[in-house]
Amino acid sequence: MSLFLTVVSLDEALGVIRRMAPAPRGEEVPLGEALHRVLARDVKAAEDIPGFARTTVDGYCVRAADTVGAGEAIPAMLRLAGEVRMGREPPRPLRPGEGIAAPTGAMLPGGADAAVMMEHTERVGDEILVKRPVAPGENVILAGEDFSRGAVILAGGRRLSPRDAGVLAAAGFDRVAVYRRPLVGIISTGNELIPAGKTPGPGQVRDANGPMCAAFAAELGCLPRPYGIVRDDRDALDAALARAASECDAVLLSGGSSKDVRDLAASVIAGRGEVLVHGIAIAPGKPTIIAIAGGRPVIGLPGHPASAYIILHALAGPLFSAMSGQPREERRVRALLSENIPSQKGRAEFVRVRLDGDRAIPCFGKSGLLNTFAPSDGMVVVPADREGLEAGETVEVILW
Amino acid sequence: MSLFLTVVSLDEALGVIRRMAPAPRGEEVPLGEALHRVLARDVKAAEDIPGFARTTVDGYCVRAADTVGAGEAIPAMLRLAGEVRMGREPPRPLRPGEGIAAPTGAMLPGGADAAVMMEHTERVGDEILVKRPVAPGENVILAGEDFSRGAVILAGGRRLSPRDAGVLAAAGFDRVAVYRRPLVGIISTGNELIPAGKTPGPGQVRDANGPMCAAFAAELGCLPRPYGIVRDDRDALDAALARAASECDAVLLSGGSSKDVRDLAASVIAGRGEVLVHGIAIAPGKPTIIAIAGGRPVIGLPGHPASAYIILHALAGPLFSAMSGQPREERRVRALLSENIPSQKGRAEFVRVRLDGDRAIPCFGKSGLLNTFAPSDGMVVVPADREGLEAGETVEVILW
Repeated sequence: MSLFLTVVSLDEALGVIRRMAPAPRGEEVPLGEALHRVLARDVKAAEDIPGFARTTVDGYCVRAADTVGAGEAIPAMLRLAGEVRMGREPPRPLRPGEGIAAPTGAMLPGGADAAVMMEHTERVGDEILVKRPVAPGENVILAGEDFSRGAVILAGGRRLSPRDAGVLAAAGFDRVAVYRRPLVGIISTGNELIPAGKTPGPGQVRDANGPMCAAFAAELGCLPRPYGIVRDDRDALDAALARAASECDAVLLSGGSSKDVRDLAASVIAGRGEVLVHGIAIAPGKPTIIAIAGGRPVIGLPGHPASAYIILHALAGPLFSAMSGQPREERRVRALLSENIPSQKGRAEFVRVRLDGDRAIPCFGKSGLLNTFAPSDGMVVVPADREGLEAGETVEVILW
Repeated sequence: MSLFLTVVSLDEALGVIRRMAPAPRGEEVPLGEALHRVLARDVKAAEDIPGFARTTVDGYCVRAADTVGAGEAIPAMLRLAGEVRMGREPPRPLRPGEGIAAPTGAMLPGGADAAVMMEHTERVGDEILVKRPVAPGENVILAGEDFSRGAVILAGGRRLSPRDAGVLAAAGFDRVAVYRRPLVGIISTGNELIPAGKTPGPGQVRDANGPMCAAFAAELGCLPRPYGIVRDDRDALDAALARAASECDAVLLSGGSSKDVRDLAASVIAGRGEVLVHGIAIAPGKPTIIAIAGGRPVIGLPGHPASAYIILHALAGPLFSAMSGQPREERRVRALLSENIPSQKGRAEFVRVRLDGDRAIPCFGKSGLLNTFAPSDGMVVVPADREGLEAGETVEVILW
């Protein structure tokens, strides 16, 4: 007998997931490990960036006023005051009527407020002929022009891109505060299960859910921690659950295609906490369990990998996204349904589809098979209030 | 003076990249580390999957012939022949007129060819009343029905998803042959550069390109190896390049916003191999270098991070994709240009844009600034044969 006879809607189940998800926590990591991590808070400039005025061209730093009216015919004539070297302080401030040679990126000397490009000058001994005027600020970046002290450089909640890594480095952040990757314990149950590397004896099959759940958690920014295969035995299951819940931030428990085993799992979980949902009005995935055990969120997945994946996508995805702070962009495309999809009113039906151009082809076939699972592109949902979808309908495909 | 005065088109540069890219090489990794890696070859079933016929429902394994004509009124009556336990061989073959209890996923005994669901039966002592007929093969999966021995489970070149991890585990692959992650050496040059964690003195700025290039390489499935900041000095640069080229599969060399430094880099690279391209008819990024040094592909990037990123995207992306075997999906969206983009005929202009609904807003402003770089969403290309794009035009935005 199931512990809970009430079957809830998918929306109710998602509400439970949202309420149970612990808020993400922060940690500091080196910038080199921060790619695709999520900023735990705003990053603000600790100083003006750049810290000094720089030229953006190869040429001469000048006072703009000294170039007024300069042209090809009558160039402005400036005295060469030496050169600024990259990464060094200019030898001295610029006096009126002077120019100083400077490569792109060099520091402007005091007194200079613009730069002229090499191409617009001519050098005659110690004199520079300037053939075009420049305005104050032309060809230079002022101190603090990129980011002034205290300005938000990148906002909290942002998933860091390679571009962000460059900007953070430029602003002096070689470590950043990002959300911690939640540790997800993964337990597979089933007397028939053996690890992928072993040869099955009669009646035995290899555990597909363990590696699939681990990869799914990793894809969503979590750290999977496998607890291996546990026999359908109350004590063994309880011990594994207790350990996983004490060591991890959340637990995925998969297996139990038969009712007896599912009920055993629910009863063991209930003994360590509270089963919040046992039964969702969706197919596949009706016997899904949502619970708190040992203070941690636990999702009990169907035993069949293709069904388990639907629940991973529909429920574990939102849970992990909330816990990791990783924004989850569900990609959707519109397509024409190639065949009728029959469905039972009163439950949402998730049907895997393969995309072929603008057509969505349902992956029907026996429920136990995997051969249409890997090549599928996503799923179509038949809402609970409909009795199926018709060939030729425009449907929204939720891409994996 | 530049070593090469010929400026090539972007297409020509891409042709050079394609020809120089070494083919990806394979390695075996544990399945748990294979997420998002690319299969180096087809994975074929080494045996029939499943290895035996299994039931897909909770109920009884039967001979379909024994249920012909069964109904609510006149059920078929079968003798209970015990039960099949999960992961075990059935106790004995099924004789005509018998049924054997079996949970979902259990092995079918010899003689059985179908299963009836528990809900369609009634148990009376040692007899099973079957109230609905089943056809041969109903509610069971036959041996080899998922994948028959030798069938391609996943094709070479496929980027592994969490679903693939499940299917590979089910098929017995706890290790998989994937393409090696190319090692990319990253060198930043510039006398003005200091690492992100240091405080700049007068004239000094922090190295943004090193961390950005490393993150970019990592995003494309490569392993970045930083060689730090090298002074603009022939011997130092040559030593760093020699070491990176001997230890890595490719090298990114960034820095040199000034012409003198760029020419130094080109000359050092030429000394260790061959400069194939020095100058591309694009803006920004004209002084880009494409070369072979120490037998490895080398890309010399502009010094400014925003310009360097354009070249990473346009040239290092295709190089890394070819070397890592990672399929690279360049995502594009159409948008309405919010402002005119002026451009010079004869070179392709890459303009960063920010998306706002269906509008693409060009990120203009001084070329040395980073503050519009991180928040940009992608770029618009003004083709070499056009003198700009007009506000209101529909443009294609290449998303980062």
